[in-house]
Amino acid sequence: MTLDLPRILAAHDRIRPHIHRTPVLTSARLDAAAGAKLFFKCENFQKVGAFKARGAANAVFSLDEASARRGVATHSSGNHAAAVARAARLRGIPAHIVMPSNSSKVKARAVEGYGGQIVFCEPTQAAREEACARIIAATGATLIHPFENFDVMAGQGTAAVELMQDVPDLDLVMCPVGGGGLLAGTAVATRSLRPATEVVATEPAQAADAAQSFRAGKVVPLAKTNTIADGLRTNVGAPNFELIQRYVRDIVTVEEATIIAAMRTIWETMKIVIEPSSAVVYAAILEGKVAVANRRVGLILTGGNVDLDALPWVTGRS
Amino acid sequence: MTLDLPRILAAHDRIRPHIHRTPVLTSARLDAAAGAKLFFKCENFQKVGAFKARGAANAVFSLDEASARRGVATHSSGNHAAAVARAARLRGIPAHIVMPSNSSKVKARAVEGYGGQIVFCEPTQAAREEACARIIAATGATLIHPFENFDVMAGQGTAAVELMQDVPDLDLVMCPVGGGGLLAGTAVATRSLRPATEVVATEPAQAADAAQSFRAGKVVPLAKTNTIADGLRTNVGAPNFELIQRYVRDIVTVEEATIIAAMRTIWETMKIVIEPSSAVVYAAILEGKVAVANRRVGLILTGGNVDLDALPWVTGRS
Repeated sequence: MTLDLPRILAAHDRIRPHIHRTPVLTSARLDAAAGAKLFFKCENFQKVGAFKARGAANAVFSLDEASARRGVATHSSGNHAAAVARAARLRGIPAHIVMPSNSSKVKARAVEGYGGQIVFCEPTQAAREEACARIIAATGATLIHPFENFDVMAGQGTAAVELMQDVPDLDLVMCPVGGGGLLAGTAVATRSLRPATEVVATEPAQAADAAQSFRAGKVVPLAKTNTIADGLRTNVGAPNFELIQRYVRDIVTVEEATIIAAMRTIWETMKIVIEPSSAVVYAAILEGKVAVANRRVGLILTGGNVDLDALPWVTGRS
Repeated sequence: MTLDLPRILAAHDRIRPHIHRTPVLTSARLDAAAGAKLFFKCENFQKVGAFKARGAANAVFSLDEASARRGVATHSSGNHAAAVARAARLRGIPAHIVMPSNSSKVKARAVEGYGGQIVFCEPTQAAREEACARIIAATGATLIHPFENFDVMAGQGTAAVELMQDVPDLDLVMCPVGGGGLLAGTAVATRSLRPATEVVATEPAQAADAAQSFRAGKVVPLAKTNTIADGLRTNVGAPNFELIQRYVRDIVTVEEATIIAAMRTIWETMKIVIEPSSAVVYAAILEGKVAVANRRVGLILTGGNVDLDALPWVTGRS
């Protein structure tokens, strides 16, 4: 079992009725600043406010009828939780969502809003996995892992498919890396559709496990990560890393202050709301970490779910 | 001299190379909340971050060659100033921009960034007009009034033309009213293209001169206005009001707290940055001031220029 272009295209056909075809936006001002042509794929406009709607929908709608009837389960404190709850509701099946007890109220409300059944647990990885295993044993639900799942990866890869359809002659596609579901899907889709197009990933320096793993040639997990880009605190998954090694040109890191500056510049210039995890890609351009001069560059903006009461330039976090 | 559809369509042909064709966005969540189909025309994505780019471009490119060479002048502390400076630079002619001495640094920088020549004056209407008149006497520049100008109105009306092209069967088009340039252009374009479509305008209750004038059947200026919607503090113009009386169904008012709530809801739900003046239209729906149930409603989001350091839900202004 692996990930390839036919699987990503099949995912696209499967989820098309359930997702937005998000627009690709450009900015003359940001192009001039970068000396490049930048094409922003706006997954902040996606259902549930993030690309996670794609992978969750593909995984849920790929289940056979008997499995589906027993429901799905996952553990997540973020956008994947809402995405699984939403996909399950669309299919009319139960969704059991294990969330750490310190999850934000906003995120829990989003899951409940989509009809997900929340089980709170201690905020440790062990407690999350144990709670999830208990639910699966009791209900027969299928685990929808946020990234170590080829159906999820295939779904995430559909954003790059749309980007390449809209802008066929990209020299470079950039996206963030956390667990590696989006990056694996993006890299396989991009390189299969146009082998000459490079894929470069970006990661916060304070959660640089994927970059370190990439240099080491093997998964090097970090015990502790600390970044404002909350979607990217996860360590990269093993099946994801194998695909990343094969298809990705480079993984670069960016500082927290640059992430905040990049986020603010995109809000001010493009008039769109993106979350910190989305901003790491443009941050890499600001830091000069990626050669973009005179190139056509696709950037995947991954999501737009932020707490408007705690904006980083107001609270001073950096 | 007046405003009619041929003039607006000619404006559209004239300015097309110089403006964005902005997208029309929708939101399943906001539709469900309103019990209507809402179509948001995103002029926050327009050049200079506001619809003002349209009217200024049309006025500047409508000048004959001899007049153009003597330059243009205007007085404004807001988006119109940047829009005139930008249009003048595109035509390669001088722009003299009179700004009150208390204008925000951000706005002055925007004008300078487009090559506008700023003349600061005392922050009174008399001082602004006097400074502008002096420049015009000395240079022969043409005044580009922000709204009492039929070329400006024709340009502003092109946003409604595009909206009606993208969504031909609207029951209702809503936009804000300040000086009335956008409203006059929108009303003439909408009612000429589809007489069955109603036009309703929205205004802050704390700057309700247009609503009061509409009820009185004559222009009733307000000496003092005080609203967070800084683009709507202006009194409605006389030529604008005449068109508004003829083509507009109603002008409704909204409270400051609702403007802020509407702005925040649109940021959170649609992931776009809009300024308070843009939010008054959706605020009218939130306050139940306009009958939208089961109707197809176009809403013009006028701009996205906000100070991210002074967001109203953070600073507590309401």
